[in-house]
Amino acid sequence: MRPRRIDHIDNPDAPGVNSIVPAAAVAVTNDKGRLLLIRRSDNNFYALPGGTQEFGESLVDTAIRECKEETGYEITVVGLVGIYTNPKHRIEYTSNGEVRQEFAIVYSAVLLAGDAMTSIESPEVVWVDPAKIDVLAMTTSQRLRIEHYLNRSEPYLG
Amino acid sequence: MRPRRIDHIDNPDAPGVNSIVPAAAVAVTNDKGRLLLIRRSDNNFYALPGGTQEFGESLVDTAIRECKEETGYEITVVGLVGIYTNPKHRIEYTSNGEVRQEFAIVYSAVLLAGDAMTSIESPEVVWVDPAKIDVLAMTTSQRLRIEHYLNRSEPYLG
Repeated sequence: MRPRRIDHIDNPDAPGVNSIVPAAAVAVTNDKGRLLLIRRSDNNFYALPGGTQEFGESLVDTAIRECKEETGYEITVVGLVGIYTNPKHRIEYTSNGEVRQEFAIVYSAVLLAGDAMTSIESPEVVWVDPAKIDVLAMTTSQRLRIEHYLNRSEPYLG
Repeated sequence: MRPRRIDHIDNPDAPGVNSIVPAAAVAVTNDKGRLLLIRRSDNNFYALPGGTQEFGESLVDTAIRECKEETGYEITVVGLVGIYTNPKHRIEYTSNGEVRQEFAIVYSAVLLAGDAMTSIESPEVVWVDPAKIDVLAMTTSQRLRIEHYLNRSEPYLG
């Protein structure tokens, strides 16, 4: 069975946290005002491009690398959408029993270059009209981040 | 020998990174405009109060808890000074060989209540006139964070 990612949000029966791993994500729109999203292969939900920090890179560099790997696009970070560290959001990995507490920093970015390219982790890369995001399958945490990107002027600090 | 913390900053001979652990710190001034600092017992340098995130708490709650533990003061977070994830800043712990890459989020805060109280980790708790910070022994990373708190209007993103 393919390893899966299960997001437990405000679930009192979620397994206990045993890890915190910083991740970065990016919110970027194109010249038509459409938002860049991927569909994740590990849970089939739509999400902002992003992933976990590796040793030797800054978190901004994580955001740039993950966006390139998952979407094919080169971006540059221009601002901060928010810092998401809700301990009631737990991410369970069925492959190894890891249960991570949410730790994601979402940056706003602008598009520099590139063409859409899928990956094993992101079998769909799409530009979505913000008015049509409601219908996409997505965790509540992703919806919150996107809503903050579209509507807040100050970074969300949790 | 007492375990020590050694900050390697831009040191090509620093040991390789084997860990990333999110930490929070707070910058808070009192009604005389003095900045709250501690002297750390693990390296004898002055620093903003702060420490690493525990399972089950948000990073803002980490900042509040660490400030209370290290200084005796209750604070509330009001803004973001910056996100510090420089991979060329490595923190070596002599007790166990851990080499952490810098990962700190610095919040601005306001004082709510409390009286100065030292701890094993913070044998000095001081309110310092910003004009007199130059003479205090401090890592360059701490100086940068304080300079950003005092002089920047936008959060530092690295």
